Amino acid sequence: MIKLPVSIQELDSVHARLCLDIEKFGNLKSNTNFASKKLLVAVSGGIDSTALLIISTLLTRKCGGRVFCAHVDHNLRDESHKDREFVENLCLDIDVPCACKSENVSDYASKNSMGLEEAGRILRYDFFNQCMKKFDTSFLLLAHHLGDLGEDVIMRLIRGAGWPALGGMDAYDPDRKLLRPLLTTEKQQLKDLLESIDCTWREDKSNSSNAWTRNRVRNRIIPLLMEENPNFGTTVSRLKNQADQDMDYWNHEISKCLNKLERSESGEILAPSSLLNKSHSAVRCRLFKKIIEMLGKGHALADTINLLENAYSARKTGSVFQFPAGKTATITKQGILFKILKRY
Amino acid sequence: MIKLPVSIQELDSVHARLCLDIEKFGNLKSNTNFASKKLLVAVSGGIDSTALLIISTLLTRKCGGRVFCAHVDHNLRDESHKDREFVENLCLDIDVPCACKSENVSDYASKNSMGLEEAGRILRYDFFNQCMKKFDTSFLLLAHHLGDLGEDVIMRLIRGAGWPALGGMDAYDPDRKLLRPLLTTEKQQLKDLLESIDCTWREDKSNSSNAWTRNRVRNRIIPLLMEENPNFGTTVSRLKNQADQDMDYWNHEISKCLNKLERSESGEILAPSSLLNKSHSAVRCRLFKKIIEMLGKGHALADTINLLENAYSARKTGSVFQFPAGKTATITKQGILFKILKRY
Repeated sequence: MIKLPVSIQELDSVHARLCLDIEKFGNLKSNTNFASKKLLVAVSGGIDSTALLIISTLLTRKCGGRVFCAHVDHNLRDESHKDREFVENLCLDIDVPCACKSENVSDYASKNSMGLEEAGRILRYDFFNQCMKKFDTSFLLLAHHLGDLGEDVIMRLIRGAGWPALGGMDAYDPDRKLLRPLLTTEKQQLKDLLESIDCTWREDKSNSSNAWTRNRVRNRIIPLLMEENPNFGTTVSRLKNQADQDMDYWNHEISKCLNKLERSESGEILAPSSLLNKSHSAVRCRLFKKIIEMLGKGHALADTINLLENAYSARKTGSVFQFPAGKTATITKQGILFKILKRY
Repeated sequence: MIKLPVSIQELDSVHARLCLDIEKFGNLKSNTNFASKKLLVAVSGGIDSTALLIISTLLTRKCGGRVFCAHVDHNLRDESHKDREFVENLCLDIDVPCACKSENVSDYASKNSMGLEEAGRILRYDFFNQCMKKFDTSFLLLAHHLGDLGEDVIMRLIRGAGWPALGGMDAYDPDRKLLRPLLTTEKQQLKDLLESIDCTWREDKSNSSNAWTRNRVRNRIIPLLMEENPNFGTTVSRLKNQADQDMDYWNHEISKCLNKLERSESGEILAPSSLLNKSHSAVRCRLFKKIIEMLGKGHALADTINLLENAYSARKTGSVFQFPAGKTATITKQGILFKILKRY
């Protein structure tokens, strides 16, 4: 049984400062005093999420909020039930309500012809969403830290993400009420915090397996980047800062354009020439992407967006471009007409 | 002695198409028919620059331009004089004037307390600039290809470049009249071209040495990225395309702001509040960087730019921020005053 400090003041000064920095970061990103709310913390039992559980519990005690814990046993490893026991016991010790669920991830994956990672993610978030309703929480807190952000940047680079998505996962996702307060914190700081209060954690052996892309990025590529620049984490954090700034900028710019779109009753969207001709190609490409997303499910490929932009620049009236899920864009004399084929 | 095809038509169709694609790319980037001009081609004798020499020779024959060759012997390897002989002989074969220079790079490096890479670069470009004057050429052609671009993106990521610089080296630098027509061409395509016309090249053994960052990126990191995405080159090319688009966009936006700066006779620059307050932080940060550059030598650190932005957002009047080479930015009631200390 761990003897959790009752308040942040009981931590040593380094870790008290760490908690306050994390609070400040979470407040900045969520634009609210998040620790004054009801929070659902997703806890696997590893270093990161155990630390997040402790930190958010201390912060809510200070700010008047309340923490709830959710744990999913993926049943992908023999010892996974021990992780569940660890999380349940820790929650009992620190007086946090804990909801656990056992899922057969490999079964779900094979039934739905998907990978284990995707299946795990779907089942996990289904349960988290149920818990958020049950506990009436304002935010789902996830334990992604600076190391995860660095891996995510590399994975996005590999997959071909554009800017500002290349900057990595968001600290805050308002649609899903998802908050990552540790996103600029180093894993080592979390480990130090747990050790300073004699709190243990569970090691996930699957983290060292190179069967998954994320692990290969973590175990093989990141160490080489760290060798070239030991402050690679700071570099990633700065890149993310600029990406957030640019994301906000482009959201503003594109939303100004959205007011000028012409929508028909049948759901077609015309981006008029009057708008397009005075917009820079950097704006147009992002506007096209946004309109394609507005038409419904199915993302637009960057290459097709570029072809559309090149054709529009060359005024190739009559050209039609096809996007996933039956969406099309047609260059007309009036501008570009976006629509979705009925049979989809 | 190689029997160079006299014209592009004599190449097989794949390589004729390759040459025309390279011409099209170079024209697009330089915004002119570059192969109708006098061109200086920098040739080391390796695959890339040998291919560039052949391709640009064929293209100038078609378009009415003329090729000149420049080669620098860095004297860093025993066999480097053989590279020079190779380049001189090839130029004789294809009737291209060739200027060669032998430099003592390690001597220059130790005398000036710099690394071999930097010393080599300085001496090389000094000679290229002399040759450009001597031959009165319009462009300096460099043989960087898609593989080099991918390495450059990773090196910039490691060094902490922001967007759009993160997209990698430019295909065209108007200030230095520098053009990289092969920047979206795969190295393998260049090798295939040379083999198809029985043209040899020199292998640079120092490319396999992991003593230099660039080689470590090439030999250790890039192969891992290619393993995850065999089309990593295409991904890099697409990223560069977006970076160019955004660079052009930001150049336009920032130049609009420059008109509104107030300059004193003593060289101080005031960015007035009227301009700053209606600008987004994404614009402001880029404007600050530009003003710092306008003051003279010495780049602005992104972290200091961010601190300045945060302080301005919080209206911390009186705060002073220091940049390299004696430059300062002071937040005043009128805006931000940028100046350079006299003693520098």
